[in-house]
Formats: sequence, structure tokens, C-alpha cells
Amino acid sequence: MKNSIGREIPDNIPGLKNLRLYEGEFAPLPAGSLYGKTVRQGRPGDNKILSSLSEAIEKANVTDGMTISFHHHLRNGDYIIKMVMEAIAAKGIKDITIATSSLNPCHEFLIDYIEDGTVTALETSGLRDALGKYLTKNPGKLKKPIIIRSHGGRARAVEAGELKIDVAFMGAPACDRFGNATGMQGPSAFGAMGYAMTDCKYAEKVVLITDNLIDHVYPYSIPQTDVDYIVVVDQIGNPAGIATGAIRISNNPLTLCLAEYAVEIMDETGYLQEGFSCQLGGGGASLTAAKFLREKMDKKNIKGSFGIGGATGIFTQMLADGLFKALYDIQTFDTAAAKSLYELPQHIEISASHYANPWNPGPIVNDLDIVILSATEVDLDFNVNCMTDSNGILMGASGGHSDTAAGAKLSIIVLPAVRGRLPMIRDRVQTVITPGDSIDAIVTERGIAINPKRTDLIEKLKDSKLPLMTIQELQQAAYELVGKPREIQYSDKPEDIVAVIEYRDGSIIDVVRKPLSL
Amino acid sequence: MKNSIGREIPDNIPGLKNLRLYEGEFAPLPAGSLYGKTVRQGRPGDNKILSSLSEAIEKANVTDGMTISFHHHLRNGDYIIKMVMEAIAAKGIKDITIATSSLNPCHEFLIDYIEDGTVTALETSGLRDALGKYLTKNPGKLKKPIIIRSHGGRARAVEAGELKIDVAFMGAPACDRFGNATGMQGPSAFGAMGYAMTDCKYAEKVVLITDNLIDHVYPYSIPQTDVDYIVVVDQIGNPAGIATGAIRISNNPLTLCLAEYAVEIMDETGYLQEGFSCQLGGGGASLTAAKFLREKMDKKNIKGSFGIGGATGIFTQMLADGLFKALYDIQTFDTAAAKSLYELPQHIEISASHYANPWNPGPIVNDLDIVILSATEVDLDFNVNCMTDSNGILMGASGGHSDTAAGAKLSIIVLPAVRGRLPMIRDRVQTVITPGDSIDAIVTERGIAINPKRTDLIEKLKDSKLPLMTIQELQQAAYELVGKPREIQYSDKPEDIVAVIEYRDGSIIDVVRKPLSL
Repeated sequence: MKNSIGREIPDNIPGLKNLRLYEGEFAPLPAGSLYGKTVRQGRPGDNKILSSLSEAIEKANVTDGMTISFHHHLRNGDYIIKMVMEAIAAKGIKDITIATSSLNPCHEFLIDYIEDGTVTALETSGLRDALGKYLTKNPGKLKKPIIIRSHGGRARAVEAGELKIDVAFMGAPACDRFGNATGMQGPSAFGAMGYAMTDCKYAEKVVLITDNLIDHVYPYSIPQTDVDYIVVVDQIGNPAGIATGAIRISNNPLTLCLAEYAVEIMDETGYLQEGFSCQLGGGGASLTAAKFLREKMDKKNIKGSFGIGGATGIFTQMLADGLFKALYDIQTFDTAAAKSLYELPQHIEISASHYANPWNPGPIVNDLDIVILSATEVDLDFNVNCMTDSNGILMGASGGHSDTAAGAKLSIIVLPAVRGRLPMIRDRVQTVITPGDSIDAIVTERGIAINPKRTDLIEKLKDSKLPLMTIQELQQAAYELVGKPREIQYSDKPEDIVAVIEYRDGSIIDVVRKPLSL
Repeated sequence: MKNSIGREIPDNIPGLKNLRLYEGEFAPLPAGSLYGKTVRQGRPGDNKILSSLSEAIEKANVTDGMTISFHHHLRNGDYIIKMVMEAIAAKGIKDITIATSSLNPCHEFLIDYIEDGTVTALETSGLRDALGKYLTKNPGKLKKPIIIRSHGGRARAVEAGELKIDVAFMGAPACDRFGNATGMQGPSAFGAMGYAMTDCKYAEKVVLITDNLIDHVYPYSIPQTDVDYIVVVDQIGNPAGIATGAIRISNNPLTLCLAEYAVEIMDETGYLQEGFSCQLGGGGASLTAAKFLREKMDKKNIKGSFGIGGATGIFTQMLADGLFKALYDIQTFDTAAAKSLYELPQHIEISASHYANPWNPGPIVNDLDIVILSATEVDLDFNVNCMTDSNGILMGASGGHSDTAAGAKLSIIVLPAVRGRLPMIRDRVQTVITPGDSIDAIVTERGIAINPKRTDLIEKLKDSKLPLMTIQELQQAAYELVGKPREIQYSDKPEDIVAVIEYRDGSIIDVVRKPLSL
């Protein structure tokens, strides 16, 4: 079957049921109710603090076949998944589904647990490096394809009970004996705890793992009412991996070029006006746009209303300087931003659902004017891939890409026209994460293509000095540099489906197949 | 049928189904799942702000027979219930169940809506004055008895889906266009918004009514994800009724006597030690205990860990002075406390569920060492009434009485032995709100009775200077002053059941019958 953007989705995908095909950005109306976890009773004298992860696994009754969840707020410093999986494996528990908000290079060890059958399914926003390569090459190692979700889509799936979490194991930089917790305090502080907030509310059982048990946590991100057990450990993460230091503005000329073009488009199309809102996605050029944005705002003497993070110190400095009135933050990218979240009241922590869940009365992405996003490649239909590389190997993350692109009035993709010897404007991207309908402009150093559906933007930009061209012309410009690439050949066997890409509404927008070359 | 404390509960109560009898403080284990509201989709460009309450009632689809909810944070200054009921009545909608966290004297106008059939059922923690008298005298005016719930019991009922709210109409002293809201800012600020937090999470539809629409609300108590519509009005309440000014320590000698005894018991039983936690309930003697508590803490040179509010300026001053590390607050009783909530981070807002819901992994009341509570009357089984007067007329509120008494290690009741010409220690209280099993000490100016089940306390107090006696002796002392009272006679007709008293777990601990004299 083909979905509405022409991607072939097999009728039967091993291990997955009730697949819905992607039909359009806001096509399917939601049905059903929010998931309700089993009611339980706490009594006076109960003690949530357990002696070990082993005890927590027993008390939370983790058994073969269960789904356990993690957050990725500890980034590449995360110790939680490793210590929990060690304790689970030590008990001989098998057939675990890991549902995590994302994975980082430090989670390469999961290969061992997949090999020995401890882990048999994976649901995540991203995965990369050794684990990405391993699973792209060996889809049969899992009993069903990896499910890739956006941050908003994951929140939706959790709330709607499609992703039913049996036990959430959540690293908490500070918590109290009642179970109130925050990510903002303590030696492993990472800032906002937005993914954990949603998991804790809906998981059947919640185990907090902390290296910082304090008397009273305030403000709390997780309320004690969501928490069943607490385990105190020496360290929940490696500080060097948790905090990346202050993310800096790039000096790379290509990055600067893309960032400057993006801000020019914001301005020339009229979206960069008093009270505008924006998100600058992860990735060099998106983040670097802050530099030009700031200059432009100063020059125009305008102020924004709000930003949305993934927060960086670059953006929080603009907040502190009054260039924006508020910053909504689901996860905090660097130490400067974590400090800002703790100190500035207008730096506001929000849950994954608050950020981007398409099935609530209104996530904050719905009020975005502008988003700037990166990509690994784009195609002639403006579809965006930020999940697989040019060889079809899993190496990225869905993140908030499709969420913000669907919500924002102006969605700008920044990417180099060419990487290495490969053109980044393809006939068809390897993997669609964000559909072309959500994308308004594609910015490269060789030129800028506006989605032909946005005739209003083309009209506004026609007299600008920006190097506008069609997407076909842009592709041609790249081809002239490096030639037309060979198309990757993929296995068409159902058992070689590596991953399914869920759009934020839960429909299947694409699948990742095993490349024949692997 | 008799429940486990010997109260006769009719087999069939008109309009109520699936009644469970009270079996003991923590007897029934919970079953089932948290309620999940219907999933809905918000789209970019949606505008939550409606032009009028009339439009909100249409958009939220309020129809005959629905249950609508309110909070009582605006206290006796509340305009919300009146304006919503006027708009509902103007549409000719009938057969509405009002489920509110409580009612105040300003809600007397509800009599008119009951008379004309707009309102046919009532679920609340309290009601009093004209409305209390009217409904005690005319139970047939409603299609089923009033359901009285404690604050924790109401949160439980809402979360468990027993109290299913079709539309919550919530007064918000500040909210933004996205729907994030707080009770701490604006001309109608009242402080903590704990009851509203729970309603908004579980009501099928949520309408915020505000007189203070601002750009961005932080910190938010209600997230935008819980909010469907917003209506802006001139005023949500009468400032004179919302804020009671600073509640003062009483100078009444009787009140001072009760308060001092209560603190002596805390001390002599060993609960008043470094790191203790406590709640001082509403009512003169409970609040006045703060004076003696502070003196005693100074003298012993100890500090507490946390308090729980209903917060008053008396307690928040102790917080500000470092006598407690934290104060958990569901509702704020006076202007000084509201200021504290906004300014002191260790003054922590919590939801009704966080406060006292017996069916979550642990409300904060479960960690109380000590609570001091008022009563209208007590009985020989230590049962407490704080709902009906000596003539059996509804005039009080269940509040957090049974919640805190069940949670605390030491629950002290303070009340005068005699009021007017009536003894307050009865053979059987008119109405049981809190079962004797939860009560440890009854303090009157004539003497102090310790629950005989607490042999440990009796042992600890036996050498103290406190005027200990048995509850029977205490009753006799009151009788010697004013004689034995005549028992009130009640109708035993099922249709004359005025109210059912739900214990916090949802079981029926008592019913209120119509006095024959009315």
C-alpha cells in the first residue's frame, strides 16, 4: 500500500498490528481516551526508597515481555539504561521492549542485550553510531521493527495508550523521599525534564533513580503522586557526557551562510515582526541562526514573544536580555541553559505533551511562527530525512522535527547542498521524517527553494536578493558539483524492515529497509 | 445495613447505585484505572479564547443532565458559579449536577436554580447557611442526596472516574492565550489552585474564566494541555470575599486553652521533635496552636521538616523564619499566605491529589506526624462531626478532616466541651465525617481524652500535668454543666436522606437524614 505521500508501506509488517497509513498533517481525527494507569493505594508508613535496582525490579514486577521506558535527558552521560539493563539481565528477564525518548552513542552496549534476547524490541526517537549500524544490518535481531517516533508523537502514543509503559525507570538529578523530583538541581543536573514528565504520568509503575536525595524538591517537575519507588545510586550519569558546556555559535562559513539566509527569509516574508515566536532546532546552522536573528532584531528594534527549546545558552541569553518574553523548554542542551532554567522564571519547563503532542487541546508548537530545522537530506517533494544517512543507515533522530514543522507558520530547512561527494537534494529521500507539506523553505549555500504551494512566500520573496530557485534547479546545482548519485538498493523482504517511522499522529509515514549492500 | 462503625446505611438510597459500606480507614484495596478524558486534537490557528460564557457553554456542549465542576478557591468572593449558572439557565438547560470542591455563603442563590430544576444534584465538600438549611429541610428538591466528600476523597473520585466531570468551569486569576494558568497573580489572586489542578486534568472539557489574560503565565499551575476554552470577564470575584486579610491568632481564653493543650500533647507524646511535620486545620484553636507551637519550638530549639496548608500567614511566617523547611499548599487562606506562595520557593503548591488522595502512590498527608483539627461534635467512639450542627442541619465541610486524620501519626481534635447550652461530647455524633479510628486525642477546656486504642500515648502522658480523663468522664463533665441533651429525631424515610457522607475511599461512612423538627 502507498500512503498519501507515495511511500510504499507493506500490508503486513512482522510484529506490528493495526497499522494506519499516513494521510496528511492533520488528517485523522483522534479517537479514544487518554490511558489511565492502574489505581494504587499508598499508606502512611510506606517507604518508597528501596535498597537497590534489583529490589525495584522485583517490587515493580518487571517480567518477561514487558515494556520499560527511559528518558534521554542525561544525553551521552546516561548511566541509567546500563544499570537498569544489567540488573534486569542479572535476573534472567528476557524479551524486554525498551521505549526511550532517545538513545545516544553511550548506549552501544544494548547490542549485547539484543544479542542475548534480553531486549527484543526498541521504540525511540533516535539512534546512531554502532547501534544504528548494527540494527540496520541485522533487523532480524529484534522481533519487530524499531518504532521511530517524534517527541510529540511519543507523548501522544503514551497518553493514548498505544505505547503502554509497564515500568518507567527515570533518572532524577534531585528527588525527595516522597518522590517529588526535578532535573534542575544536583551534581547530575541537566535542566528540563519534559520527556520524563509525560512518562511518569502514564507508566503503570514509576521508579526514580537518583544520586541526590534531598529533603524537599521545589519546584518539582515530577509530583510524588506519579512515583512508586525510589532507588539511590552513586551517580546517575557522567557529568562530562551530561553537560556539553556552552554550545557556541559556529564559525564555519557554510554554517554562517545557511543561518544568514534563514534569517533573511524570516525577515523578508514578514514573519520576523514584533511579538514573533520561534524555535531554533538542534544542529549547527539552526543554532547559529540565533546570531543573525539577534542582529536583525536589534536592527529592526523588535522583540519576540516566545521561543521554544531544546534550550541553549545562546537563546537563554536573548531571553535574559529581554529579546523574548518567555522560553518554553522540554530539554536543555547546555549548562548555560540549565542555569537559566533554574534562575529565570520566564524560562518555563514543559512536558513532552505540552511541547508537541498533536492530540491535546493545543501543544505550544501550534503557536510557533517560525522554526529552523536541520536535515540529512531533502527531496523534490520537500520531504525531509533526518534519520538515516545517504547509505540508508540509522544515524539520527526524529526529535521535534515533524512536530515543529507541522505547528509553525514558516518552517525552514537548512542543509548543505552537498556533503562529501553526495548531493543532499534527492529525488526521494531515503526516509521521510517530515512530510513536504510541513516544509516551506529549503536553504542551501547554492540556493533557496520555496515550497511551490506557498505562493504567498514566493510572492513576498520575489524582489529580495536571496538566491531563489526551484527545488529542481537546486538539485541540478548540486548535481553539477558532484554528479547524480547512485540510488541505494534495499531489500524488499518484510523481515528486512529495520524500522517504521510513525508520523506524530501514529500513522506510518515511512519504513526503513535494510540496504542490500550491508 | 450497618457499616463497620455501626452507622445504619439504607440498602437503597434513591438515585445512588453501587454503594459500598465503610469498612475501615484503609480497608478496601483500590481497583480499576485512572479516568482518561476523551482525546482531542488542537490545530495550529485554533483560538481558545471565546467571546462569552454563552459561547463556551455551546462549544463545550453543556446539555441537560451533565455534571459541571467548580473550585472554591475564590471563597466567599466567588462570582464564577453565579455567572456560569446564569448563562446555563438562560439557555434553558436543566438537570445539572454541580460538583464543586466546596460552597460558601455567597452561593445561596443556588436555591433558585434548584427550585426551577436547573440544578438537580449537588456534590461538594461543604455547604452552609441558607443553602444548608434549605437542603436539610427539603431533600426532595434534589433527585438524589447530596454527596459530601473530603478533599482527598473528591480527588480520588475524580481520578477514578466515579465523579465524572463533563465540563469544569474554573476561575483563573491569571491565564495566557494558550491556557496556562495560575492563582497567584492578578487582581483576583487567591494563591494555590490545588482543587482546580485535579479537575482540569480529568474533566472532559475545561473552560477557564479569567479577568486577567496575560502574555505568559509562569509558574503555571494548570498547563495549557488541560484547557479547551478561555473566557475573559470583568471580574471573577469580589476581592473583599476572596481575601480575608491576614488571619490572626485568637485572644479568646477558651481558644488559647485548647491550643495550648494541643501543643502540650504534641510535646509530651514525643511527636514534637526535630524534623516533625504538621498541619494546623482551619478553625480558631487549630490555627492558634501555631502561637504555642512556635514558642515550644523556640524553647526546645528544634525545627520542623514541613507543614501542610490550607496556608495562613501565621504558618508562612514560621516558614519564612526557617522554622519549617517546606510548606505544601493546596489552598491559601489569607493574603499574607498568598504573597508567601508567590515569593517563597519552599512554599510549594500541590494538587488535591498530591495533598490527600488515598488512591495514589502516596499523598503528602501520609507523611504527617501531627494534625490539629476542629469539630462541631465528637462522640464516645471518638467519631468526629464537622458537617452538621447539633440540630442536624448542614453547616460545615468535610474538607481535609478525614484525610489528614487518617494520614497523621497523631490526630488531635480541639473543641469546647460545651457550646451554648449543649455538650459537644455526644453518645453518637449526628454525622460521622472522620471515624474514631483516625482520632488519637480529644482536647476540651474541661479535659483531654486519649483514644483507648492508643495505649502508647496514654503511657507517655500519664505523668504529664495535662487533665487526662476518659471520653466518658469528659462527657460527664460536660453533662454536669449543661445536662444531657435531648436526642434529635430524624425521618427514616429513604426520600428524606439529605446527604450521603463518602469516606475518602468512596465508601459510605454515614448519611444525613432530615430532622423531624424541620
